[in-house]
Amino acid sequence: MKKEETIFKMVKEHHKKTFEKARAEGKMDLEFIPLCEHISKTKNYFTSSCCSGRIVLIGLDKKEKKQESVFHRKWHRKVKFDELKKGIDSFDGSVLWLKQEPIILHLGTNNIINSKIILQICEKIGIKKFGIKVVKDGKQIIELVGTHQINIPVKEDKIQIDDKYLKYIVKKCNQKFDKNIKMLKLLTKEIKKQTK
Amino acid sequence: MKKEETIFKMVKEHHKKTFEKARAEGKMDLEFIPLCEHISKTKNYFTSSCCSGRIVLIGLDKKEKKQESVFHRKWHRKVKFDELKKGIDSFDGSVLWLKQEPIILHLGTNNIINSKIILQICEKIGIKKFGIKVVKDGKQIIELVGTHQINIPVKEDKIQIDDKYLKYIVKKCNQKFDKNIKMLKLLTKEIKKQTK
Repeated sequence: MKKEETIFKMVKEHHKKTFEKARAEGKMDLEFIPLCEHISKTKNYFTSSCCSGRIVLIGLDKKEKKQESVFHRKWHRKVKFDELKKGIDSFDGSVLWLKQEPIILHLGTNNIINSKIILQICEKIGIKKFGIKVVKDGKQIIELVGTHQINIPVKEDKIQIDDKYLKYIVKKCNQKFDKNIKMLKLLTKEIKKQTK
Repeated sequence: MKKEETIFKMVKEHHKKTFEKARAEGKMDLEFIPLCEHISKTKNYFTSSCCSGRIVLIGLDKKEKKQESVFHRKWHRKVKFDELKKGIDSFDGSVLWLKQEPIILHLGTNNIINSKIILQICEKIGIKKFGIKVVKDGKQIIELVGTHQINIPVKEDKIQIDDKYLKYIVKKCNQKFDKNIKMLKLLTKEIKKQTK
């Protein structure tokens, strides 16, 4: 067996176990299980991480450096106005951002030919943000990110988003959440069709 | 000369001309000129498109399909409250989004070894969203996207962002715009150092 093949086999096995452990412990986003299950049975692919979208409140310091950012609240589901409002009211740091984050998937494979199959799937189904991020002997990682997102600062000093507008934003976040799940289903279907 | 080399030479020449034409006609984002100029003189790279960030108002229909989206207003610079407010007031479509979009660059090269140099630069300077999107004989395209962005729906039916909050959002958009330019300067410096 070539060196690259040995490396790939080891990496795939490692990620298969990590996936199975996460699923057994209930730590997987349910919507991603069908895709990850299929991928773990393929010959040439593995998944290294995934998230089916989330709605978060992120607290930042004055300089808004990512390093100092803290999840003030985090939901891997749609949200209600009351819980978001409570989260915002209780924040006493510098700057608070509300983010509806899209699906994200890191998909691994063994060579450029198999990577290209994934790139073509993204093109086909309309995922805009994707690309090969890691290229090593026996291992390539493609990142896929959904397009549906909201990024909005909601509290800083004496400024805070008002209730009426926040209610509207909650509605939009939940709409985007649904659109992400729809895109994930389409992705799952297409990957199942084109990978073995 | 190998087939791949011939293809790459043609593609590079084509994009060099497109860049020079755009610059001559004043259609280039000024902040990107130093990077594109350097790249056009390298042996193994070309740029196919770039934008140094912009602030836009995008009108959408009820279903919010990208296909039906229209630029209601577009600025490749920082904005003032009054012009943004006027733009929002004058919109009479279904849904209006305010977006501060990050820098985006499509960088081309001839093979995986040279692509990897760019991937490593992104990792090094902290660009999070990047990846090889196109892999063909004699041509690879890497997409680089900045992280600083704002996406927020500002008008729909009877809902409209109020003036006080909009003033704050304008300030944040302009801050993000500056951060994008800072990242572009860092990227330019690092690419100049690592490509010839």
